[in-house]
Amino acid sequence: MKRELLLHNPRPDGYHVIMELFGCESEKINSRKYLQQTIRTAVKKTGLTNLGSRFHQFDPHGVTGFTLLAQSHISLHTWPEYGYLVLDIFTCGPQSQADLLADHFLERLKPTRVNRQVLRKGYKYNRE
Amino acid sequence: MKRELLLHNPRPDGYHVIMELFGCESEKINSRKYLQQTIRTAVKKTGLTNLGSRFHQFDPHGVTGFTLLAQSHISLHTWPEYGYLVLDIFTCGPQSQADLLADHFLERLKPTRVNRQVLRKGYKYNRE
Repeated sequence: MKRELLLHNPRPDGYHVIMELFGCESEKINSRKYLQQTIRTAVKKTGLTNLGSRFHQFDPHGVTGFTLLAQSHISLHTWPEYGYLVLDIFTCGPQSQADLLADHFLERLKPTRVNRQVLRKGYKYNRE
Repeated sequence: MKRELLLHNPRPDGYHVIMELFGCESEKINSRKYLQQTIRTAVKKTGLTNLGSRFHQFDPHGVTGFTLLAQSHISLHTWPEYGYLVLDIFTCGPQSQADLLADHFLERLKPTRVNRQVLRKGYKYNRE
């Protein structure tokens, strides 16, 4: 049986953390490897299920990528020339999980300023 | 030369359309094929550059997927048992482009109710 058929879709209620990170170190946010590693570690740390990723390195600079999760997704887009990174973390589960993921990115990317918004999704369909 | 090296990262200013679609037809939003086709057509229609996708069909129902664009991304997560779909459209470019994409989804998925928010991103780094 294919692995994907073993997975169940979690309930839809979750948190979408939408962040803009300013003043990041250019070298870090221009490194596809560093960013992929950051996502991998974050996913592992929180026990989420990785369903696959796509990353792309732009010429001359910039990285764009996402990781699809059984619990939704993480995406990032970077503009190293501005030290600017756009990050989305959407996980179906408790807010503490989304926050833990966000904290991991902040520790690794050390922005000087952050714009952060949190949207609740699927709250109509509450956990039992 | 690899195709990806020919691509330039667009300027960061863009629009993130965050939508929740309620009352969608279960069959449509449980079809990975239908949803992938919807994204493919939308991307083609707006002349955006597809950098790759990941889609996943859940057991017993639900689809989750992501398309990475040179201009950012489109993601969707569905809960057919509730007729509920979460859609994100983030494109670096004019708002009309993001709106055109969103309209395409609404036409194809025909929700009875929509929750829609638009966030401006990277506006500090204006177009020239």
